[in-house]
Amino acid sequence: MPLTDPDRLFPMERETRDLARSLYRSVADLPIISPHGHCDPRWFAENDRFPNPAELFVVPDHYVFRMLVSQGIAMTDLGVPRADGGETETDPRKIWRTFASNCHLFRGTPSGMWLDHSFEHVFGLYEPLSAANADEYYEHIDAKLGQDDFRPRALFERFGVEVLATTESALDDLAHHKAIRDSGWAGRIVTTYRPDSVVDPEFEGFADNVVRFGEITGEDATTWDGYLAAHRKRRAYFKEVGGATASDHGHPTARTEDLPQEAAAELFAKALSGDCTSEEADAFRGHMLTEMARMSLDDGLTLQIHAGSWRNHSGPVFAAHGRDKGFDIPMRTDYVGALKPLLDAVGMEPDLTVILFTLDETVYGRELAPLAGAFPALKLGPPWWFFDSYEGIKRFREATTETCGFYNTAGFNDDTRAFCSIPARHDVARRSDCAYLATLVRTGRLRESEAYEVAHDLTYRLAKEAYGL
Amino acid sequence: MPLTDPDRLFPMERETRDLARSLYRSVADLPIISPHGHCDPRWFAENDRFPNPAELFVVPDHYVFRMLVSQGIAMTDLGVPRADGGETETDPRKIWRTFASNCHLFRGTPSGMWLDHSFEHVFGLYEPLSAANADEYYEHIDAKLGQDDFRPRALFERFGVEVLATTESALDDLAHHKAIRDSGWAGRIVTTYRPDSVVDPEFEGFADNVVRFGEITGEDATTWDGYLAAHRKRRAYFKEVGGATASDHGHPTARTEDLPQEAAAELFAKALSGDCTSEEADAFRGHMLTEMARMSLDDGLTLQIHAGSWRNHSGPVFAAHGRDKGFDIPMRTDYVGALKPLLDAVGMEPDLTVILFTLDETVYGRELAPLAGAFPALKLGPPWWFFDSYEGIKRFREATTETCGFYNTAGFNDDTRAFCSIPARHDVARRSDCAYLATLVRTGRLRESEAYEVAHDLTYRLAKEAYGL
Amino acid sequence: MPLTDPDRLFPMERETRDLARSLYRSVADLPIISPHGHCDPRWFAENDRFPNPAELFVVPDHYVFRMLVSQGIAMTDLGVPRADGGETETDPRKIWRTFASNCHLFRGTPSGMWLDHSFEHVFGLYEPLSAANADEYYEHIDAKLGQDDFRPRALFERFGVEVLATTESALDDLAHHKAIRDSGWAGRIVTTYRPDSVVDPEFEGFADNVVRFGEITGEDATTWDGYLAAHRKRRAYFKEVGGATASDHGHPTARTEDLPQEAAAELFAKALSGDCTSEEADAFRGHMLTEMARMSLDDGLTLQIHAGSWRNHSGPVFAAHGRDKGFDIPMRTDYVGALKPLLDAVGMEPDLTVILFTLDETVYGRELAPLAGAFPALKLGPPWWFFDSYEGIKRFREATTETCGFYNTAGFNDDTRAFCSIPARHDVARRSDCAYLATLVRTGRLRESEAYEVAHDLTYRLAKEAYGL
Repeated sequence: MPLTDPDRLFPMERETRDLARSLYRSVADLPIISPHGHCDPRWFAENDRFPNPAELFVVPDHYVFRMLVSQGIAMTDLGVPRADGGETETDPRKIWRTFASNCHLFRGTPSGMWLDHSFEHVFGLYEPLSAANADEYYEHIDAKLGQDDFRPRALFERFGVEVLATTESALDDLAHHKAIRDSGWAGRIVTTYRPDSVVDPEFEGFADNVVRFGEITGEDATTWDGYLAAHRKRRAYFKEVGGATASDHGHPTARTEDLPQEAAAELFAKALSGDCTSEEADAFRGHMLTEMARMSLDDGLTLQIHAGSWRNHSGPVFAAHGRDKGFDIPMRTDYVGALKPLLDAVGMEPDLTVILFTLDETVYGRELAPLAGAFPALKLGPPWWFFDSYEGIKRFREATTETCGFYNTAGFNDDTRAFCSIPARHDVARRSDCAYLATLVRTGRLRESEAYEVAHDLTYRLAKEAYGL
Repeated sequence: MPLTDPDRLFPMERETRDLARSLYRSVADLPIISPHGHCDPRWFAENDRFPNPAELFVVPDHYVFRMLVSQGIAMTDLGVPRADGGETETDPRKIWRTFASNCHLFRGTPSGMWLDHSFEHVFGLYEPLSAANADEYYEHIDAKLGQDDFRPRALFERFGVEVLATTESALDDLAHHKAIRDSGWAGRIVTTYRPDSVVDPEFEGFADNVVRFGEITGEDATTWDGYLAAHRKRRAYFKEVGGATASDHGHPTARTEDLPQEAAAELFAKALSGDCTSEEADAFRGHMLTEMARMSLDDGLTLQIHAGSWRNHSGPVFAAHGRDKGFDIPMRTDYVGALKPLLDAVGMEPDLTVILFTLDETVYGRELAPLAGAFPALKLGPPWWFFDSYEGIKRFREATTETCGFYNTAGFNDDTRAFCSIPARHDVARRSDCAYLATLVRTGRLRESEAYEVAHDLTYRLAKEAYGL
Repeated sequence: MPLTDPDRLFPMERETRDLARSLYRSVADLPIISPHGHCDPRWFAENDRFPNPAELFVVPDHYVFRMLVSQGIAMTDLGVPRADGGETETDPRKIWRTFASNCHLFRGTPSGMWLDHSFEHVFGLYEPLSAANADEYYEHIDAKLGQDDFRPRALFERFGVEVLATTESALDDLAHHKAIRDSGWAGRIVTTYRPDSVVDPEFEGFADNVVRFGEITGEDATTWDGYLAAHRKRRAYFKEVGGATASDHGHPTARTEDLPQEAAAELFAKALSGDCTSEEADAFRGHMLTEMARMSLDDGLTLQIHAGSWRNHSGPVFAAHGRDKGFDIPMRTDYVGALKPLLDAVGMEPDLTVILFTLDETVYGRELAPLAGAFPALKLGPPWWFFDSYEGIKRFREATTETCGFYNTAGFNDDTRAFCSIPARHDVARRSDCAYLATLVRTGRLRESEAYEVAHDLTYRLAKEAYGL
């Protein structure tokens, strides 16, 4: 018996299941478009083997280790590094055993499904992982990782990825992207312009970052005009050298502003001097979204807004282990009021693409679909983070399609740093969408011929178009 | 093959589908009760032919044209008038072709289903609309519109409408309603008392409106007592001349107040002088809901609260094209705190009916059903606007029935100005309710005999009772 | 035909229904763990017969009578006592007839299902209750209540309750619990430490309560240190004499604080003197949750937070009839910000169990599951109050499982004072969970063998572990 049910995620009723299967078959082998994520470009630049199963599946994946932590397992038993450089588990076999002994915690979760998918489809394992077979699993995966056909570039090709976007800071030199290009390898890896460190006055070292931003771009980035010019130049560099087609912005809220230039310049000066209040910092971030949108009108980069995560919610965990340790918790998020300044400025522009993401599902039907169903500049990103799942996708489609249709959505994103989960995540999205489409057909809400076309669009075309790929 | 699946919206599992179909058959031919909507009474007073397909289906229907606009089509290409009187497309055939070429945008939407229903069941078209057959469609519909049996009164009768409520400003003279009554035509068209223009201090021309209100009613409406007397008289006029059985109030929030009379009189004076703050205007609107509820205790009008829409969200669209252009976006809405003053004043009155509507689905289960399941004066209106749909109705029933049952809900409203969509919308509601009831029966939550009774109540009796029709 | 469908709440698709039935059979006869509720311990101490059908099913059950009230029936017609001691219906047969004549109001509601379950499975009635058979029903139930095998202890045993938790004020002497223990009866009834009356500065008679709290515990509870010591002693007393394994806290919001001890002492003094503002009272309640959590680290009591109910929403109903009359309405509730102080203090403690309840479903997926899926101290309580229902449980599982799995949830609570509804409620929970699990299996999200294990855990093991029972 396979680890993964060949009919997984399809509707239970026989006729609907048959149709979902048929729709799925029509898109299952389409190339993967991965327009937003956090893979390390170094993997593809250097093409070294992945170190071991624990460092592939457990240590770097906060989806995975936070679930073990939630049941009382110490982060240090899972090899998560300590901020003070203190001791943490370094034996990957011990970490793997701890993981294997607790994998019942992932029952019913997308992480569980992605892991099984990777075990079976990437590594050829057919027995559920458990404490009993932990060592066998480890040996098996570790041996595979030593093979040339399990190196990053080989997996990239085997996964059928047509294009993969990574995300780099505006201060990054894109050395790995250059190396990939120079290597002559045909895999398409593009970067994404992520300027949080030079846009957010509350980012660690903001003023220094801006100075460095000026040095990199040859502009006096400490003046408002020079700062805007530096962004323009750096965006051009990201396009040219890294193949970027989008920028990304991870703000705590979706607030936007469209301040008079003098007011923005004043705020910027205050931010540089470290004097601005939290409210002023928020206003500045909000204004910069509108500036970025205006630059997008010129250079064509798609603008992504990932709002609403309370980063590093646990003080003690942040102190002990730093950022990105599974303690980012969603917050209630407003879009209708927050986006008005940006929308009044550029929302009716048909050539602009702003993609909205949320961790607050209540806004799908109430705010996001009505906005995307009206403003030409807006598209809805796929369900994000905790909602990158069967139920998440189902609720997203059910809450948005009736109001904004399919064509105001932007296809699927995996948004992951867990490389092996990429085919699994796209597979879940394809299956979930086909299940939804089959249900629409069987309940007279969509014609069967249309469903095949929409399935193709959701899997392939919409993501390429929304990201200009 | 028909455009619309005869089993559309029924559950997929065979036995449940059979039961849903049977329930639906028992209510499919019941007369339409349309107790709230925005049809133009002039249609029925004058009974002229509808001008052409584009002006019937596209130009006046913001559900339809905003979807085209969201994909970058200019409003002026769709014939939407400009506020400055500037150029806009006037050739209905061109508008129709633009619409037809983009009708894939409506896949999976209620608009798509209503359009197909109208095309098939009103106009006898059996092929999906597309760019290819746009002109044929146009000719076919246009020819029908020229026939006597496609004039407004004929369609009203053919649609099986027992009663249709329109909505008129408190300042309206109800000339069309009088004309309909005087014509001897048997169709029952009633008005609804909508006093926003003389109740909302922020309404354009509020003070002048109040003066005019006094002239119309023969009261000195600029004094608090005269103002209340004017409302009482005008409500009586709407009942007598227009057959009104309800009032309607479209406030930004559900806020109510129950101020001492002197405080209310003071606020009113301030509002008339144009001096009141936004907060005071809100308080005044809130107080007037309680005054209206008190008047309802005397004259029996049902009070409807349609709260939570951010009207004309886009500044540029409002400036270019004015109100009601598809850019009204829902907002998060509170009811529990907002309604307390009104409920403390009149909530326990068994002879009062206040019907609540929301665009914020999160309040169905958390706020509205618990309130309606306790206060005798409250009933829940059907899913409104973006949620007038299969999924909207499903989520509404699932979120409210367990807490307030069926008998604290008020049947269906179509709330539309798109006349041809009325039978389609009632059909969707009947099918969706029957699908829900069949599911309850098949999962042991309702007896089959009860389901037939409830289906009839939801389709016919509850709306008549809630609106005193 | 039985009153209750043997396959009720199971999925409609045949194979899935078969699996759900099989899963259900594996847990249907497991003992009932009832770790949180409001039964009166006097019933089991004195073991007197229940007075009559009306006082068993209608008068004390605000779920039931508020539904009748919502349709305009006066509370006094249902025998609900008046605060002023004035007249109310005292004839239980008349009350029963009013109830029976209106039982169509419960169609599709959990109350309806619980009532039918009790009628059939406790009292052996097989015909739906109606106006026509109201008197027969009354006679039948009343006769049964006179039998020894329908006394509280006999029913407790027949219901298969392994342990039942009641809830007592910190000031309660636990006389009934002592009497039960002293009686030698083997039924396990435990208390729960509920200190609202001495923790909430806005509670009626707070300062007097604290004085009395000191007298009971032999501490000077009017000093901060003595107050904390009094809590520690009283918790120990509840553990020892009443078998308590948990405390319970019913705050309006989930706010927590972790104030410096001096600041807390100062607030406490202010609260005692009656001088603290509403904001300060809220801060004090919030701080006491963190103190209680710290005590839990010492004495092992599980801490329950039931936040978000606007108690006694209707002023007139509260004035006429007092508390708990069905007019408690849920409010929007924040957890992410509110719990941060407590979580920063003790959230990473693996030996602490804090169980969270909500009446605001929007937080399941957005806030509660992400929190419980990270912090070792947190578990999610089952759907509470209005959501103790098939749809409530379904939405809870769908919104939480993917993010925090099954093992960060705490099994089922009935939370009721309606004794006869206990088996009905647990039955609904078992069926709903098995329906959900069967769906997961049939859609490839859970292995069948795992589903049986999870069904057992959700029914039995998780509640016992979360409450240390």
